[in-house]
Amino acid sequence: MPSGKILVAQGGGPTAVINQSLVGVTLEARRFKQVERVYGARHGVRGIINEDFVDLTQETSHNLELVANTPSSALGSTRDKPDLKYCQEIFQVLRAHEIEHFFYIGGNDSSDTVRIVSEEARKAGYPLRSIHIPKTIDNDLVGNDHTPGFPSAARFVAQAFTGANLDNASLPGVYVGVVMGRHAGFLTAASALGKKFPDDGPHLIYLPERTFVLEKFLADVKATYERFGRCVIAVSEGIHDVSGAPIASLLAKEMEHDAHGNVQLSGTGAMADLLCEEIKSKLGIKRVRGDTFGYLQRSFIGCVSDVDQREAREVGEKAVQFAMWGDRDGSVAIKRTGYYSVEYELLPLEAVAGKTRVMEDEFITASGTDITDAFRLYLRPLLGSGMPDAFRLRHSPVAKVRDQG
Amino acid sequence: MPSGKILVAQGGGPTAVINQSLVGVTLEARRFKQVERVYGARHGVRGIINEDFVDLTQETSHNLELVANTPSSALGSTRDKPDLKYCQEIFQVLRAHEIEHFFYIGGNDSSDTVRIVSEEARKAGYPLRSIHIPKTIDNDLVGNDHTPGFPSAARFVAQAFTGANLDNASLPGVYVGVVMGRHAGFLTAASALGKKFPDDGPHLIYLPERTFVLEKFLADVKATYERFGRCVIAVSEGIHDVSGAPIASLLAKEMEHDAHGNVQLSGTGAMADLLCEEIKSKLGIKRVRGDTFGYLQRSFIGCVSDVDQREAREVGEKAVQFAMWGDRDGSVAIKRTGYYSVEYELLPLEAVAGKTRVMEDEFITASGTDITDAFRLYLRPLLGSGMPDAFRLRHSPVAKVRDQG
Repeated sequence: MPSGKILVAQGGGPTAVINQSLVGVTLEARRFKQVERVYGARHGVRGIINEDFVDLTQETSHNLELVANTPSSALGSTRDKPDLKYCQEIFQVLRAHEIEHFFYIGGNDSSDTVRIVSEEARKAGYPLRSIHIPKTIDNDLVGNDHTPGFPSAARFVAQAFTGANLDNASLPGVYVGVVMGRHAGFLTAASALGKKFPDDGPHLIYLPERTFVLEKFLADVKATYERFGRCVIAVSEGIHDVSGAPIASLLAKEMEHDAHGNVQLSGTGAMADLLCEEIKSKLGIKRVRGDTFGYLQRSFIGCVSDVDQREAREVGEKAVQFAMWGDRDGSVAIKRTGYYSVEYELLPLEAVAGKTRVMEDEFITASGTDITDAFRLYLRPLLGSGMPDAFRLRHSPVAKVRDQG
Repeated sequence: MPSGKILVAQGGGPTAVINQSLVGVTLEARRFKQVERVYGARHGVRGIINEDFVDLTQETSHNLELVANTPSSALGSTRDKPDLKYCQEIFQVLRAHEIEHFFYIGGNDSSDTVRIVSEEARKAGYPLRSIHIPKTIDNDLVGNDHTPGFPSAARFVAQAFTGANLDNASLPGVYVGVVMGRHAGFLTAASALGKKFPDDGPHLIYLPERTFVLEKFLADVKATYERFGRCVIAVSEGIHDVSGAPIASLLAKEMEHDAHGNVQLSGTGAMADLLCEEIKSKLGIKRVRGDTFGYLQRSFIGCVSDVDQREAREVGEKAVQFAMWGDRDGSVAIKRTGYYSVEYELLPLEAVAGKTRVMEDEFITASGTDITDAFRLYLRPLLGSGMPDAFRLRHSPVAKVRDQG
């Protein structure tokens, strides 16, 4: 018999829709009469260790709906990645509070946390149901068609490149936009969805799925600049050389490491600046500008995909249904079933945990610097309704009168 | 008698609504039966010198309406600032094409161009009507309550800080967002409109209207971090020391200069990175992140103030009306008449040209690191309808059970 108490937490980097999943869990759980309390742990697993819980049963449905539409993690997040000892401590807290359902919303690090907690519970003979709910702007969870959070970040990136391309066409030069994505290039590739007319940028896209060679990059930029008189470039923060060493490491002398051993590539404009310097000095182009999209792309308010909102809500709801009516732990996954429709399924935690999906080869052109129509077809429905569209003047030239004489 | 030909051009940095003014001029001019042709010069005054004109009379009204809603300068822009010789050449072209109405949409550099062209026409006895149409995200034109382009950029900055604050609350640390604005801090100050709850960021705002002292900055950050456990900071790219030397110059060893003699502060993430380094090394705070908003803030598609769109359209329309029915050259200006309503007037070019407005003292708190309610009241109606709002969970703590024993 269930204890009547469930716990939900949010881990990893925030997204524009992660609160939809939180509210999906909370409201759906409140419909089950055996659920007495819905607790939220503040700042992820760290909040479990610290017994830092809030009672979401005392929150109004109305405010929950408003929070659902607010970006970032309303419960707070953490970068902690529990080891065995950490997980044993999680148990002591869960047991002490008689919590028997644990929902953790996060990316592949978080899914690994759920896997470890689930195993520890089984070994300890504690009746815990553990469900991982997917979330990541990187879109790098295996077993998922895509992950909640990615479509809204992709929409931001596409809209940003639509604007950057128009800006660059107005004052021609070279523009470099650096996009998040440590191992997977999906978000950088989304820049291509900002293109409309054939000569629109981004003209070149550099993904972590392909080796970055500086000389090739400069040759690409030169050729594009000569052809269009300008060049718009999308670059993933995770680009690396043939040895796998991040290009960013050429620049940042001291690199920060977070608790997961990941090099900090976000929160600094160094790579954009270095690439711009290379273009200026090696190609002799005067007007070269770089932007690093940074945190804007994952928590911007007011640029959200309605498809993403809907799905993020549903993975939260389905997680509760799988937990209440099912007989196993797992990771909720999105499966595409049509053009465009989805179903949700519960994957074994081992199938998802700690694994990293990268862009499929069919999504990248042979040149390695553009995306295919297959990717365009894949991403477009995810961006949702009401995507803004760019228009231009038709060219009706007026004859010169001065130079004719 | 008018020649029947008018010329319109766009100068300086693009905005999200500058095409509204272009279309306002074009459609309004097409209503006057004495107007035979509406020409657009491509890439500003440079396009006049090059006789690079397009015939906007051959464009459909429908496409013009769509272009009006597209950010950036549809005709292209330029950073050229004409001197006397340049202006004499402009004449030769205008005279050769029998153009007798010249509309130039731009900021204070562009207004100065219109002033010189107007003077040259008068001296040469050439019957030219020259009207400057205001545009700048910096909001630094004197004689205007505000300038078209600023409200939409301000909306982007406010929304960006709403998201950045939520992100920072989720994963606490220090966040530095660098905002455009060489001499005027209006756009940086707009970050404060992203605040809702009393402890929301931006907690500190650094404007070019106040001297930046690094030691004071670090003390401010330390105090804020100790109070809230986190700190969100908005910094203008134009901050400077007591001698007026830009803080950015401490960092960038080689600084680019554009044709106007302005130091290039945009298109590099150097200042954000330097400030983050200072905070890390001097205050010992581990999680410090910086974003440079760069070009995103001026040309982002899909984050536009409807008030800004409406007014940008009207300054274009009024420019034509002033030209056709008036008897003098000038600069169209927005005058606030109520809460919230505006009227348009034609100022003498000398009153606007080449002058720079900065933030009024009443808009800045005594501390120098925040804005007043007067500024909040000034800016809020400009941001337009449908501003997204952020919500948070109410705190209903659950009693700890482990630590009681």
